[in-house]
Amino acid sequence: MNEDVKVEVGLGERAYDILIGPGLVGRAGAEIGRRLPGVRAAIVTDENVGKQHLEVLKQGLEAGGIASSSIVLPAGEKTKNFAALQEVVDAVLAARLERGDVVIAFGGGVIGDLSGFAAGIVRRGMNFVQIPTSLLAQVDSSVGGKTGINSARGKNLVGVFHQPKLVLADTAVLDTLPVREFRAGYAEVAKYGLIDRPEFFAWLEKNWREVFSGGPARIEAIAQSCRAKADVVARDEFETGDRALLNLGHTFGHALEAAVAYDGARLVHGEGVAIGMALAHRFSARLNLASPDDAARVEAHLKAVGLPWRMADIPGDLPDAEALLSFIAQDKKVSRGALTFILTRGIGQSFIARDVPTSEVLAFLKENHPG
Amino acid sequence: MNEDVKVEVGLGERAYDILIGPGLVGRAGAEIGRRLPGVRAAIVTDENVGKQHLEVLKQGLEAGGIASSSIVLPAGEKTKNFAALQEVVDAVLAARLERGDVVIAFGGGVIGDLSGFAAGIVRRGMNFVQIPTSLLAQVDSSVGGKTGINSARGKNLVGVFHQPKLVLADTAVLDTLPVREFRAGYAEVAKYGLIDRPEFFAWLEKNWREVFSGGPARIEAIAQSCRAKADVVARDEFETGDRALLNLGHTFGHALEAAVAYDGARLVHGEGVAIGMALAHRFSARLNLASPDDAARVEAHLKAVGLPWRMADIPGDLPDAEALLSFIAQDKKVSRGALTFILTRGIGQSFIARDVPTSEVLAFLKENHPG
Ligand SMILES: NC(=O)c1ccc[n+]([C@@H]2O[C@H](COP(=O)([O-])OP(=O)(O)OC[C@H]3O[C@@H](n4cnc5c(N)ncnc54)[C@H](O)[C@@H]3O)[C@@H](O)[C@H]2O)c1
Ligand SMILES: NC(=O)c1ccc[n+]([C@@H]2O[C@H](COP(=O)([O-])OP(=O)(O)OC[C@H]3O[C@@H](n4cnc5c(N)ncnc54)[C@H](O)[C@@H]3O)[C@@H](O)[C@H]2O)c1
Ligand SMILES: [Zn+2]
Ligand SMILES: [Zn+2]
Repeated sequence: MNEDVKVEVGLGERAYDILIGPGLVGRAGAEIGRRLPGVRAAIVTDENVGKQHLEVLKQGLEAGGIASSSIVLPAGEKTKNFAALQEVVDAVLAARLERGDVVIAFGGGVIGDLSGFAAGIVRRGMNFVQIPTSLLAQVDSSVGGKTGINSARGKNLVGVFHQPKLVLADTAVLDTLPVREFRAGYAEVAKYGLIDRPEFFAWLEKNWREVFSGGPARIEAIAQSCRAKADVVARDEFETGDRALLNLGHTFGHALEAAVAYDGARLVHGEGVAIGMALAHRFSARLNLASPDDAARVEAHLKAVGLPWRMADIPGDLPDAEALLSFIAQDKKVSRGALTFILTRGIGQSFIARDVPTSEVLAFLKENHPG
Repeated sequence: MNEDVKVEVGLGERAYDILIGPGLVGRAGAEIGRRLPGVRAAIVTDENVGKQHLEVLKQGLEAGGIASSSIVLPAGEKTKNFAALQEVVDAVLAARLERGDVVIAFGGGVIGDLSGFAAGIVRRGMNFVQIPTSLLAQVDSSVGGKTGINSARGKNLVGVFHQPKLVLADTAVLDTLPVREFRAGYAEVAKYGLIDRPEFFAWLEKNWREVFSGGPARIEAIAQSCRAKADVVARDEFETGDRALLNLGHTFGHALEAAVAYDGARLVHGEGVAIGMALAHRFSARLNLASPDDAARVEAHLKAVGLPWRMADIPGDLPDAEALLSFIAQDKKVSRGALTFILTRGIGQSFIARDVPTSEVLAFLKENHPG
């Protein structure tokens, strides 16, 4: 018997399990075959993950009697585009998979978002399984069914809701993840504490070193994060309300990602989120919603783990405050012209603020702009 | 007061109305505005429909206080591809429409399928309204939420289920439709009779001339067809069962469309369906499921209205029977390798036949092949 931690995502007839533990890639065939007997699989992965882990997954599937083909894409955010979507769709159709067969996302959030979207549109929806290999994907993007690609007009503007049938978070594959990527994923872990779990945030302040080094604290942090996300998703599957809380740090974060033209050398998603969360707390303090001490506490923790926490931490020049504001206005969390932000009253007390005045945002960006 | 006929599609929280009557294009703003107050619109149309009717629609929207932009695509099946999908998506994003705004499909089934797909994926699902302008689109493709594009591997293999909020079937715009296209749409009208409404089929045998010429019989035929389709869709929104009945004539039909490489000069969709329905009845007779008299009755009616009813009616050479069979096997109604067909026990007595032996299909195709 293995001792995977199991988190259930309660979505009625679309409910599914997240299994968390070491070695799940090698046991994927058994876990998938138990839930989807008789399927064939198309694995979608990227060059980094493919090189290091694809063979183990293929053998793991074969051991469970699951025949598979695979498609390997270039690594990185730029792969979340229309051309790659079409490539995955064509590969799945070329493998002659049917609706009941399965597309497996094997990689970070880029691969998960892209191949989940493909699985959602081939034959108007095929079975889909997530095997997330980055920390960010394990605690965030693989859970909840949001899939998509980027457009010239902004990130994640095109996609579908398509829930997986199963998520396998192998905590051991994280050992090959570059530390910078691990840190970026950790930003999303901290986010759950900052949204509405102050004790979890305090636990992370004490235990983050063990989360980074591996072992039970890592599994615990991932499981807590998945539970937090699953709770929000179960309350609001299609993001018409509460789910927006998950965007804490993302309005600023996405604008910064856009401002560096999604250049991962300068800023990866989780780093943008880290800076965004620090800014959201600082902005809340400026609006007299939260204490400056809370903002300082968030900044200190991000700094301690080695994450960027202010715009000045991004290498190279940034566009000016006005330009940043226009990136924010283009972002998808603009509802009928009014700016919507996730703000906070303190650690673990985030809320959705609608109608945040543009002038306040602009003034704040000017104050905090490094240039 | 206008006297539009209303058909309700009973899909719970996704329920919507189909309004049928003359002049609805000019009244679109009022009907949409009543249901979706305050929206902005992106109209998607093709060159033929755009030239003749776009101004009326724009004015109709404006009269209802709805601002709109429009995108005009080349007419024809070839437009249902990835490039056009991306073009529509980009245009909708460029117009800065939000989730609550509306994409309007204004054209035949090609425009409906393509722009419904775009509406389903921009921001993971925007509001969508169908204003079908071909008979086929009014009685079939605009109802039921199936959207999609073609792939090199087959028709309609990529898409989503995305229900419209409203369907406006303006029976007067059909007057500019080429007769050949009207006939092609009529094949789908006859289909509803052949599936499970024998009295409707008998009514059509008597009244088809009035349906073609316009007036109350046309409205009646469209309303009956929409009711028939809405019933099936309400029973099986995501095509996991009964909905397959709507594919009567489509397995053969799609194979023939593929066999002529979707060349509309040789065969349009509804014509393929006409031949496919005749073949499905003839094949059922060959399998001793139905009487040859019923097959003859179907053939006679299709012939009377001027539709093609046998492979020999397709201009030019067709691939041989083996090649046609491989087109059938590629079609999406293949479930785990077994051939699924819609067969019949007589007029209005269709049923889903699974595990139809490939050898029978091949023998039948050879017998009926014109070459
Ligand atoms: N769908 C959602 O709900 C959601 C939520 C959050 C983020 N996202 C998306 O997720 C993406 C970011 O995810 P990400 O940070 O995982 O990016 P990513 O997929 O680009 O992975 C980061 C890098 O790590 C590499 N990598 C992944 N696993 C590895 C492993 N085990 N060993 C070695 N290298 C490995 C990848 O090749 C890549 O170079 C963004 O596109 C973001 O929009 C989606
Ligand atoms: N989604 C579904 O459930 C469903 C069901 C059946 C068919 N379909 C799809 O529908 C498509 C066929 O639809 P179609 O036959 O409407 O094809 P179409 O959209 O190509 O229209 C046929 C022709 O008629 C022209 N036209 C349309 N309305 C006109 C008008 N009022 N005046 C003048 N010209 C007009 C068009 O420009 C085109 O040239 C196929 O792609 C098929 O796969 C979808
Ligand atoms: Zn994120
Ligand atoms: Zn059809």
